[in-house]
Amino acid sequence: MNALVELKSELRAISDLHAAAMVLEWDQNTYMPPGGAEARGRQIALLSRLAHERRSADRMGKLLGELSTVADQDSTDGALVRRAHREWERATKVPGELMSELRNHTSRLYSVWAEARKASEFAKVMPLLEKNVELSRRYAEHFPVDHPIDAFIDEHDPGMNAASITALFAELRAELVPIAEKILAQPVPDRTILDADYPEAKQLAFAAHVSAALGYDFERGRQDLTHHPFMIRFSSGDVRITTRVDPRDFSSCLFGTIHETGHALYEQNIAVALDGTPLGSGTSTGVHESQSRLWENLVGRSRPFWEHFFPQIQEVFPEPLGGVDLDTFHRAVNTVERGLVRVEADEVTYNLHVMLRFDLERQMLDGTLPVAELPDAWDERMEADLGVRPPTDKMGCLQDVHWYCMPIGGGFQGYTLGNLMSAQFFAAAQKALPDLDAQIGRGELAPLREWLTENLYRHGATYLPDELVKRATGEALSPQPFLAYLREKFGALYGVEL
Amino acid sequence: MNALVELKSELRAISDLHAAAMVLEWDQNTYMPPGGAEARGRQIALLSRLAHERRSADRMGKLLGELSTVADQDSTDGALVRRAHREWERATKVPGELMSELRNHTSRLYSVWAEARKASEFAKVMPLLEKNVELSRRYAEHFPVDHPIDAFIDEHDPGMNAASITALFAELRAELVPIAEKILAQPVPDRTILDADYPEAKQLAFAAHVSAALGYDFERGRQDLTHHPFMIRFSSGDVRITTRVDPRDFSSCLFGTIHETGHALYEQNIAVALDGTPLGSGTSTGVHESQSRLWENLVGRSRPFWEHFFPQIQEVFPEPLGGVDLDTFHRAVNTVERGLVRVEADEVTYNLHVMLRFDLERQMLDGTLPVAELPDAWDERMEADLGVRPPTDKMGCLQDVHWYCMPIGGGFQGYTLGNLMSAQFFAAAQKALPDLDAQIGRGELAPLREWLTENLYRHGATYLPDELVKRATGEALSPQPFLAYLREKFGALYGVEL
Repeated sequence: MNALVELKSELRAISDLHAAAMVLEWDQNTYMPPGGAEARGRQIALLSRLAHERRSADRMGKLLGELSTVADQDSTDGALVRRAHREWERATKVPGELMSELRNHTSRLYSVWAEARKASEFAKVMPLLEKNVELSRRYAEHFPVDHPIDAFIDEHDPGMNAASITALFAELRAELVPIAEKILAQPVPDRTILDADYPEAKQLAFAAHVSAALGYDFERGRQDLTHHPFMIRFSSGDVRITTRVDPRDFSSCLFGTIHETGHALYEQNIAVALDGTPLGSGTSTGVHESQSRLWENLVGRSRPFWEHFFPQIQEVFPEPLGGVDLDTFHRAVNTVERGLVRVEADEVTYNLHVMLRFDLERQMLDGTLPVAELPDAWDERMEADLGVRPPTDKMGCLQDVHWYCMPIGGGFQGYTLGNLMSAQFFAAAQKALPDLDAQIGRGELAPLREWLTENLYRHGATYLPDELVKRATGEALSPQPFLAYLREKFGALYGVEL
Repeated sequence: MNALVELKSELRAISDLHAAAMVLEWDQNTYMPPGGAEARGRQIALLSRLAHERRSADRMGKLLGELSTVADQDSTDGALVRRAHREWERATKVPGELMSELRNHTSRLYSVWAEARKASEFAKVMPLLEKNVELSRRYAEHFPVDHPIDAFIDEHDPGMNAASITALFAELRAELVPIAEKILAQPVPDRTILDADYPEAKQLAFAAHVSAALGYDFERGRQDLTHHPFMIRFSSGDVRITTRVDPRDFSSCLFGTIHETGHALYEQNIAVALDGTPLGSGTSTGVHESQSRLWENLVGRSRPFWEHFFPQIQEVFPEPLGGVDLDTFHRAVNTVERGLVRVEADEVTYNLHVMLRFDLERQMLDGTLPVAELPDAWDERMEADLGVRPPTDKMGCLQDVHWYCMPIGGGFQGYTLGNLMSAQFFAAAQKALPDLDAQIGRGELAPLREWLTENLYRHGATYLPDELVKRATGEALSPQPFLAYLREKFGALYGVEL
């Protein structure tokens, strides 16, 4: 048992070093003056290096070896040792020189991408992207995987791989493309309310009000403004969110805040006992995204939710919204469009954007798609799935930063896994709470939050995603609850049989 | 030379760890939600421990040993090695058990003091204060000093000691007490403008305007609100200040901001090449305080300064200040009073408060003042120097946190050293810039700031305080420039021969 005590103490120090680096990043994104950038980069790198040194230390490997019987136990300690072992393996498997070559290359790639994107010229960044593919494949070779992308998927969505995800996505896409086509054939709803004057301070106050109503604890968090919104955890008592404001469109700040609140509700409700251990945060990118999307979409864009909150937002913005009726409002914030940009996509088309990226990165990694053919492959797939063709690479394969700032692979699938899970979790909650829709309609969000806490949040990373889904919903992960949700919601909204 | 490269690299890592801890402290004091406190304390302690481990490492001692010939050089590298050696000695001389006993004791002492202060009952905290005296004496025994307080003075004001400071203070007090008496015998000026409505946002904007006019670079810093104002440095490109606002008295925010701006001007103008080395910050508490006080008092409370800025502050607060004349305003912000509280004291009486504390802590440490007699000794000295007697211990020997949160000794003398130096530096600047008063009267503050940068700021901690004073002013540190300054300024303000 002494080895376990020592392991936990060392893991806590690693967690504290990581949290300290996170505070420095939060400050960098919120309040740091421009002059602080250079030293701040160095300071964050130092803390990350110290955490990595401890994570990959020989002593850590020895402790984990001594604890191999604990790792076999079906207990929290067992899960803790298993997770710590995963992290130790990941920290030690790839040679330091390759890691530093990857860091240096992606840092250069990022700045060239920023230029190439501005100029909308893929050719400018192509050779460096090719090199990133090569380095990423070399990275993946250090893991016992069937497909190079598995090495990256396993980092973000442990327990999953290319085969399992490809099967899920194929089932989803086969039914989703015709659903999207039917909706997109309908007349476009009236969206004039999304281009009016919404004073910033009022937007922020209303977003904070909604966030608190969902259960976000401002005594253990806060909201600030950043260029890109995010959620960040320093400890169970300090989980922060950020947002941005578009003075002409309230939906960016409001739904962005609900999205980050979803991530934060997960982190704020993990059992305090797991704080400072590798179990003390969300279990995967996909499960995390399921919570941001559940609150943003299945709750925040639902008809019951707005039955309660619409009179309130009308009071805050009497000028653009006073004379609008609930149906018009609800349709405006649920419009389905043939968009080119993933981050602006609606609930229906979003996953088409994601699956495109997942398929192309998988093909680049296994060599079936030469990097030079990426722009054409992108454009053709957009045409096939969404019926639009990007006019420029900037709106196409240069639009997302993921491939240009880190090893290629594993950065996208979590978005769609999250959407699928969000519907599956919500359906299970509806079964357990037969009054759920009516509760949401009365602004009573505690029962849903408590069900999610009991079945998901409190466990942190104790269970791998597949197991967590099975425990919470009784079923393996499937696209069907999500498809059923889309058919019902958008069938009603657009008055069409889906 | 390899040893020097390795030393500098290690010192930079120590500096970065320290800076990271400072960012966490800044956040703790500005934006951290209440729930973050527990983990934050642990995170800061970890970073401090890691910095201490590196500072006291055997390898560090070995490197410094190899560099002993460099330490003898009259060069920046020589100064760097000497300063690093001082810090290594300080980090290694005191046994770890005593350090941790001191940390634990002062942490307990602090909370008991907070209670005792609230109840105004010295007896409650007396036994713990006695123990702090004992532990502080044991700490000092590890240094080759004539008086136990020298061990602490040397940490804050290196190169100085009880003997040199006692001599300076005796000369000062002998002339200062009669000056204060003469002024206090005069009628009290009209201070009604210091109890009116000053909207917070306007106060903050005006304070920031003045700070920028003094030369504070907001691209390499920022100002936020905290309970206690402070200046904090993360790197040469990120030096922040904080302030507080009293909605009835503009002077708290304004002069507080100018004070912290003075500290920040020092840090922002240290040569960038010294960043990340032990020379990359102010050389002592006293010299640092000389800069906050120079800008706050010799500039910010001067008649020429307000010739320029009075019309501006009248425009910002037309309601209380529109009909006031410059003389009334200038006298109101320079009122001398028989106060009981150090932090509220004016320029004339402030040093009497400080010298009282310095003498009493010296006597507690050498055993000539039993801790049980502290309240009486305090009250008698207040009566002798200022003609007032604290009605309660809360307004007396319980008022300052210093003796109750760290080892006793060395925490006070810097305030008065700073005041003495501020006048001596300013007199030297006046000699070098014959037009200085007129420049200040025109709001031209760059020449003074540039003189200070050339003669003080850019050197960082390259020179010890005594040497810096001699280099900048041509004379050894003396109370006479400060006394001459008081006589001239307050003689004119109060219309009395001092």
